[in-house]
Parts: sequence; structure tokens; C-alpha cells
Amino acid sequence: MRLAHFTDRRADRRDGHAEHLLGVVVGDDILDITHLVPGEGGRGFPLQRLIEHLENGGVVELDPTAPSRHLSEVQLLSPLPLPPKILAAPVNYLDHKAEMHVEHTVADLGIFLKARTSVIGPDQDVVLPYTDRRFDQEAELGVVIGRHARHLSVESAMDAVFGFTCVLDMSLRSTEDRSTRKSFDTFTPIGPWIVTKDEVGDPAGLNLWCRVNGVERQSTSLADLIFDVPTLVAYASSVMTLEPGDVIATGTPAGVAPVGDGDTIEMGIEGIGTLKVRVTAHGAVRYEDRTGAHLDPSRIASTHTRAGR
Amino acid sequence: MRLAHFTDRRADRRDGHAEHLLGVVVGDDILDITHLVPGEGGRGFPLQRLIEHLENGGVVELDPTAPSRHLSEVQLLSPLPLPPKILAAPVNYLDHKAEMHVEHTVADLGIFLKARTSVIGPDQDVVLPYTDRRFDQEAELGVVIGRHARHLSVESAMDAVFGFTCVLDMSLRSTEDRSTRKSFDTFTPIGPWIVTKDEVGDPAGLNLWCRVNGVERQSTSLADLIFDVPTLVAYASSVMTLEPGDVIATGTPAGVAPVGDGDTIEMGIEGIGTLKVRVTAHGAVRYEDRTGAHLDPSRIASTHTRAGR
Repeated sequence: MRLAHFTDRRADRRDGHAEHLLGVVVGDDILDITHLVPGEGGRGFPLQRLIEHLENGGVVELDPTAPSRHLSEVQLLSPLPLPPKILAAPVNYLDHKAEMHVEHTVADLGIFLKARTSVIGPDQDVVLPYTDRRFDQEAELGVVIGRHARHLSVESAMDAVFGFTCVLDMSLRSTEDRSTRKSFDTFTPIGPWIVTKDEVGDPAGLNLWCRVNGVERQSTSLADLIFDVPTLVAYASSVMTLEPGDVIATGTPAGVAPVGDGDTIEMGIEGIGTLKVRVTAHGAVRYEDRTGAHLDPSRIASTHTRAGR
Repeated sequence: MRLAHFTDRRADRRDGHAEHLLGVVVGDDILDITHLVPGEGGRGFPLQRLIEHLENGGVVELDPTAPSRHLSEVQLLSPLPLPPKILAAPVNYLDHKAEMHVEHTVADLGIFLKARTSVIGPDQDVVLPYTDRRFDQEAELGVVIGRHARHLSVESAMDAVFGFTCVLDMSLRSTEDRSTRKSFDTFTPIGPWIVTKDEVGDPAGLNLWCRVNGVERQSTSLADLIFDVPTLVAYASSVMTLEPGDVIATGTPAGVAPVGDGDTIEMGIEGIGTLKVRVTAHGAVRYEDRTGAHLDPSRIASTHTRAGR
């Protein structure tokens, strides 16, 4: 099943402003099932509430008379606009390890976290914060967690998975911690929908691609993951409790390269869908003008004195 | 005002199991104000709901006839058991920079993220995951965000602050990304309560200390922060949207050192309170036996072939 958030095309389509309706995508049509999710109009987004409802043993029966619309009549929004957590694998393809000239892989780097506030949906804008720094696209398979889970074995890890989606892990190349470089607002496009795991089968059989302005940059088989999906989910659960709605970005293959103002990034995963976003540098500042860049020298000097005691 | 989560001492006191009541601490007494928070019994914890209620212009009038109990009759729980986000400053005191032998500070490292599922409360156990790796205590001032905020100036940053608390940023020393090393479940003790900013005044005037098994390891003036609180909050908001209930750990001074099974860590901040936790290695495994440590060599070989094309 393909589960999407959508809104009326005429409404304000920015996430957080538009009302998020929940739909099932069947062919080129979308069936509105928002009314089937408990707590309609309550806190949180309907797909997040649906995942939590199912974790608690709830059932949703599809209504065949539900109103249906053509996909072209609606605007898709991010299916998970505010996940509890976003986890990501730093180096999970050997060809990406080679191009980055790094020593380590996911096996000794573990996972990192992205801010949940960095999510956008299909056809929205990635907004670059600095005018004079390199920003790269990283196309990845996203795994959506279906229930609270801790210390999963590799063999049982898929039991905790709800479904799959496309994720772009946008990245600043600079000295900052990964969490900063990858957590600017708009730096985690997710979508176009979540495909439940029963429809996907073994993700290792899928292919992933990414094009910038129509030119292919990334293409891989998901069989090339260093930590495959069950191993990555099990490892993540050995560190922290996974929560329903958590998204795990599984890492990016070779082909990571700069993007800039006006570029269009499109990625796709066979059997899942395609996700397209634009890049803008509107409002960007020079890196040296970022907040906090101008330290007060007197404060540093005072601290030095104390440290020297 | 000092706002605490508490439960009956006789109840199961593990966070997530105990019912979280919301109290105002006055002297050695705690007044139960849970019933004053809108959405009682609804989703989320009462202090989180109170902060969101106040952001939306809501008012809470204290009831002077509210039932009061002596603090010794209750068990305090973490005041923010599941914050939207936990942000932290990696190197924000020059004396800690010196002891860690690192080149950079918060000014070029930015902030990192800890998993929200890593929080515990006062008198709970920090559980070490590995038997043969170093784990350190890092005592820090925690800043609690009161409202959604983005692109704050340093001058206006304190407007977005709700209050302050004590935070222990427990850390694994190893090759993993900071998010992994600091996000194991139980690695973010927070408490004993949140003190609203009106009661604290300028945090730069406070002193912080930390003792392990009664022996002092850390002692600093918060005036020694490289990014002071307004600068750190403003910087964080230049990267990502801050949310009500977000916690920002402001970094640790010199004195970071190993802790192990059976140790007791106690930290305090003048004008805020003291936070004590125990350390246990119960259930820890050897690092080489962690999940995913044994990669399938055939998968690596196959990926190498592809990368070599």
C-alpha cells in the first residue's frame, strides 16, 4: 500500500501550514482515508497517528466508497513531516567511502542523527544557508519504523519496519558535526509516499538513481549496502529505542556532488517512487557572517587564564 | 518557578511506566498542578504540554489550595522524558578543548544531536552498553526552549528560552559519530526539575560542579562558556527550527574522566539544583560483539567489484 499526505492544490502547500490529508495511492488516483484514522483533527499528522494506531493493535478497514481524486488534482506533502527521530548511516557503500577518501564505514562510525525539523516534501525547495560553501545531494533509501523496538536481532529486525520511502540527505561540506551539516531546515526531503513493506519485499533487490538537472549522478543496487537494511535497523536498535515513525536513511552510493541555486534534484527507487525538489540559495549569507562566527576575544582570553591554573 | 515531574514512591518509577504528575517545588514541598494543564491524560507529558500551552498564549493560574506533599514522599522523574530534540555543544569551554586535544570549538563544530530516547531522570541508572570501552561523564547546563524559533538574533535569543536544568551528557570514547556515542538509552540524565528563566536571571553568573563517588571532577563558572547561552541558542536557531521543549546542552568544562559499573555521578548548578544518577554495566557486551560488527566478507567483495568498474 502507498500512503501519502496531500492537500488541495489551491491551498498553501508549505508543510506546517497546509492541512495534511492522508491518502492511499492506487495507480494515478488517491483515496482520502483521513477520516479512518483515530484522533482525526488531534495532535500530530495523520500518517504518524496511523502508524501508532497500528502498533497498538488497531485496525483500519479501507472504505471502498471513499472519495477518490486524480493525483494531478492534489499536491503531495511529506508523508512524515515531523518524525520522532531521523537516523542516518554515514558511510554505507564502499564506492561512496572511496570517493570521500575516508577510513571508516558504518561498522565503526555507527549512525548519526538529523533534526526532525529538516523535513520537506515533494516539489518543495531545499534552501541553502550559505553562499560560499559546498552543498551535496545524497540520495538514499529511507526505512520507516513501525513500532517501539530495542535490541532487535538481525533476523527479527524487519518485524519493526513499517515501510520504505525516498530520502535526500542534503549535506554541507565543512568542519561542523554531521548533525549540523545535515540538519538545516529543508535538508531532508522525504517522499513521495511511504510504501508498506509487504508491497516492497526484499529491499536488496531494488535499484536507486539520482539525477541533477536531468543528468544522472547516482545509480546503485541496494544489494551494495555494507550494512543491509536488517543489519542497520538491528544496529540502530542496539544503540537506542526506535519509535514508530522514525526514519532511517540507509546511506548514499557514489556520485555525491555539488548542487546550487536553481538546480533540480530528482531521485527514484524502483518499486517505491520518485522524489523531486528544487534548490534555492534565497536568503543565504556568507559563511563568515553566520551567527556566532565573531567570538568575543575577551571571553576566550578569560577562559584561557582559568584553564591554565 | 521550579517545575518537576513526580510519581508516588511506591509506583514503578521507571520513566515511561510511571504516571508523570506535574508539580511546583516550593522549598521542600511539591504542589500537584497536573489538573491545571490542558489535555490532562492526553498525549505527551504534562510539562511538555504546559510549555506548548504557554507558547500558544495559554495561562495557568496556580491554585493555592492544591494538594502539597513533602519532596521525601515522592519520586522525582525526568521533567522532559521525551523532548522533541536534544541539541548539544561539542566543545564550548577552552579548558575542555585543551584536555581533549582538539583543534576546533563550537564556533566551527556547530552543534550535534542526541536521541530523545536517551533521557532518564534523577536517581535512575546510566546503563553502559560495552564492557571494554571508556565512558565519561560530562556535566552541563541545559537550556529548555519555550517556543518555535528560527533565525533568532543573539539579542533576542533569551525570548525563546523557557528555563534551565542540569544535564549529564554521557559519552562513549570510540570511533563512532557523536550522535551514536552520546545517544545510548539512559545517556542523557535531565533534572531534577526545570527552573523558569525569571528565577535564574543571567546564567553566566552561575557555577557548575560535578562529583563522581563524592570526589570533585568538574567545577566552572558558566561565564567561561565560549558561546554563551544567547549566542548558542541564536546559532542553533540559525541551523534549525527550535521547538517548545527542545533541550540544548551547553557543553562541559574540563574534568571529563571515565566512569564505570557502580559509580555514582552527582552534578549541581547553583540556583538550579542537583542531579544524581548511578552507573551500571548490567547487560553490557564486549565491543567486538556489538550488532553488525561481523560484516559478511562476500558482501564487501561484491561491492568492491562494482566500485572498481
